[in-house]
Parts: sequence; structure tokens; C-alpha cells
Amino acid sequence: MNDLVWLDGRILDTRNARIAPTDRGFLLSDGLFETIRISNCKTPHLTRHLKRLAEGCAVLGLPAPAPALLHKAVADLLEATALVDGSLRLTVTRGTGPRGVLPPHVPHPTILIQAAAPPPNIPSAVSLGIGRYQRDGASPLSRVKSLAFLPSILSRMEAVAAGLDDALLLGTTGAIAEASAANILFLNENSLYTPPLHDGALPGTSRARLLEKGLCHERSISPEDLRAITGAWLVNALSLTPVSGIDIHEMSLHPEKDHLLRMFLFSD
Amino acid sequence: MNDLVWLDGRILDTRNARIAPTDRGFLLSDGLFETIRISNCKTPHLTRHLKRLAEGCAVLGLPAPAPALLHKAVADLLEATALVDGSLRLTVTRGTGPRGVLPPHVPHPTILIQAAAPPPNIPSAVSLGIGRYQRDGASPLSRVKSLAFLPSILSRMEAVAAGLDDALLLGTTGAIAEASAANILFLNENSLYTPPLHDGALPGTSRARLLEKGLCHERSISPEDLRAITGAWLVNALSLTPVSGIDIHEMSLHPEKDHLLRMFLFSD
Repeated sequence: MNDLVWLDGRILDTRNARIAPTDRGFLLSDGLFETIRISNCKTPHLTRHLKRLAEGCAVLGLPAPAPALLHKAVADLLEATALVDGSLRLTVTRGTGPRGVLPPHVPHPTILIQAAAPPPNIPSAVSLGIGRYQRDGASPLSRVKSLAFLPSILSRMEAVAAGLDDALLLGTTGAIAEASAANILFLNENSLYTPPLHDGALPGTSRARLLEKGLCHERSISPEDLRAITGAWLVNALSLTPVSGIDIHEMSLHPEKDHLLRMFLFSD
Repeated sequence: MNDLVWLDGRILDTRNARIAPTDRGFLLSDGLFETIRISNCKTPHLTRHLKRLAEGCAVLGLPAPAPALLHKAVADLLEATALVDGSLRLTVTRGTGPRGVLPPHVPHPTILIQAAAPPPNIPSAVSLGIGRYQRDGASPLSRVKSLAFLPSILSRMEAVAAGLDDALLLGTTGAIAEASAANILFLNENSLYTPPLHDGALPGTSRARLLEKGLCHERSISPEDLRAITGAWLVNALSLTPVSGIDIHEMSLHPEKDHLLRMFLFSD
């Protein structure tokens, strides 16, 4: 029953759920989203996602939906879909508005929650290239998981067309920011590093959990630095994926580290 | 009857027009749009808009809708709405897709055309500030009128909160790129200039017509250069609006130039 969605207070079949053509999320990417892991019929990190959502809403000047409303919506949708494992996507837009860039004085946000089963085939390792689209870590928007995903989409499409699995986006600083839908971890002399936000990394929830536990540290990594890197992983709220190579640089695989990181991130 | 839209081949009341929650335009800003002037029940520059749309589709790796289809759609909607003057917004997205960043192999684009009457109150002149969001003129996406409008939305909101009408966005070069929904023209020693695309300007249709006729020329303008500027205008496909001031710099008004520019741009 993964074709059910929660939309503005109601659980509907996706085919009956309607986004208005005047929704500013559709017309102007005026909104943001979260991707939330479902594990054993629960969402163990929902509170962390809702905190990031509220921070993003503050950047957008959009009243954040009440956490209690979203907790109940998630619980209701989980019950209706009976999904044991998988993911939710929670989208919040500024809702409908009159023609033009300026939002209505009092927005009525659209809130959509979609459920998905785990993807059927998870790659054991991925090959990456370096894309030509950048992330501007100096922009407040680079901290927000906004609907504006075209640079990531085009980076991923170009990587796949080149026979790779995904692309890294560089920050305007010239250092590596992140992949198209995941943060990146680098292994150097047995320590894990991840790009800082000012290099354009999105503040991912799994990234934050690793940093808080001291399991990884922030460090800028330029494309030239890749020569000294002996391993890498893509990580987001749903998965940790080893990287087999970046551009011309082959990466070693570290199955014991995969296991430990996955135990920490995803065993709850 | 401005509540009618053309959506994927059908003319519908907006209230009955449904965008799917799985539309990639809604979820990921995976699409682009054109804003087209209606004048005397006609769209005199439709061909130019459709050419820019096709160029944008090429950047997005999206098959452009057939011009004949769009010409007929526009004609049908104009007839149904009976609008004499106003504007159309033509939105093309990559359509629905499975979960995730990567598009389906064969996309089925969503095509939406909305009609609007002329805005009720057009300001006689506007005051501008310089916003903190940037446009990256080095990105192929900066040439595309994509759905990713958040930097413009936030720039406009911040300008209005500061008591101004609109904001200029700077390019990553540090020079002025454009306003939140218009190109900018500058007057210097009786000649008109407009920022080049590599400073982050969108290739606007009115901008292109002025350049082609030699009525204005491309030149980078930094915020410091504003001291030497004696007049400025915002221009897009629908309107030309004099600028009364930018940041601390007052601009002179030039009613005779307003008239000539409007005659050239909008008398057809």
C-alpha cells in the first residue's frame, strides 16, 4: 500500500492526490523536503529531520508546520501503509499564491508525505565523477534541503551518461561539497572526514550523527587531495554506500568499516 | 475566464487541474517556464519564447515539446479565456518519475499553460537594493529559466522587508546580474547597457530584442559603478519599469526614454 500519501491532513491514494497548478512548490521551487528512514515500522530520527525542516523554513521565511502535526501525520501514514522498512519523503511548500515572485502575506503551506519501500537493488559500491555544477556554500540556501534540485539532477544524469554511478558537486570554494543526493565521507590515515558546510555540503542527518559522535570530522577536500584518500562512502538518511573510485582515483573497499558505520547509523 | 488552464492537452478550470504529487517539477524543480505577453488577443513573441524554451530543454536533457503543439495550445487557451491583454505562463516539467534524483529513461513531460490578466497596479518607478543571493553565470543553468526560483523569491522578500520594491542579484563575478524577475538596463552617458550572461543575467526576450536592435549593449556593472549611472530600468517580457534608486544611489527618471523603449518593446 505504498501508493498512499498524506496530503494536507488526509490520507489518499496517490492517484487521487492533487497538487494545485498554482502551488508555489510546483511553479517556483518554493519549498523544501526531508527524506526519512523507516525502520521496523518506526522513524527513529524523525525529531532530527523536523528540526532541520524548521531551520530550513526559517531561511525561507515560512512558518514551520507544528511538530505534533507532523508526528501524527507520519504515524497515521505509517499505519495506513503498513510499511515495515523503507522511507518517507516529507515535502513542505509555501502553498498556492497569486502570479509572481512575491509570496502571499499569509501563506497556507502544502504538506505532502509520500512513502516508499526500500529500493530493489542497492549497489555494493559506486563509481563517481566530478560534475560541473557547483554548490554555493556561502548562500543560506545551501543549508536548506530545498526543492531546487536541478544541479544535482543534471550532475547525476551526466555521470550516468559517462558510465559512472554518480557525481560529486564542487563548492564555489573549489573543494568537494557532496554527491547528488548524499554527503561524502573520506578515509585518510584511518580517520574519516567530510566536507564542511562552507564548501557547500548539505547538513545531512547521518553526517550530523557521525560528527556528533566523533566518528568523523570536517575537513575541506580538494580534487587534488583525492590522491591521498584511500576510501570513501556516500551517506544519507537511508544508506551508506562504499565508493569504488572517484574520477581517475581508485578507492579501496573496507567491508569492516562499512559494517561498523551501518551498525551505528542504521541499526535502530 | 482567467481561471482556465491548458494542461497536457485539455482546457480545464484551474480548480479541476491536477498536478501529480510525483511530478518532478513539484518534487525537484525539474522543469522550466516562459512568461509570454498577450497583446490584442495575440502573443507576438511566442516563437522567440519557444526557441528559448527549446534551448533550456536541451540543457536539461529534456525533449522539447513540438512548437506546433504549443502554438495550438496557446491559441486554444487564448480563445477559451478571451483575454485581450495579459500574460501566459508556459511550464514544462519532466513529468512524473520514480523516487530519486535520476529521471525515468523516457520522460513524459507535463505541460501547463496558465493565463493572467494584466496586474491591477503597475508601479511608476521602483526602488532596488542589492540582495545577498547570487547567480552563477558560469553554470549552464543560469541560461535557463528553470523552476528553481528560491534565490529570487528570498531576494525579493528581503527587499520588501527593507521597504524597497525589489533586489538586484549579483553574479559570482561580483557584478550585477539582474533583478528577481527582470533584467536591468543602465543609462550611462546617454547609452544603455545591460549585464552580460557571464555575470549571471538570464537571456530575457526583451533584453535580446534590445540588444539585436542595437538599442542597448552588454557591459559588466559592479556595485561601485552605480555612482556613474544616471538611470536604470527593469525589463522583462511583460513590462518596462523605471528605477528610482539602487541602494544609496538615486536614479533620474527619463520619461521620454520610457516612452521610446515601451513603443519598441510593447506596441506590437
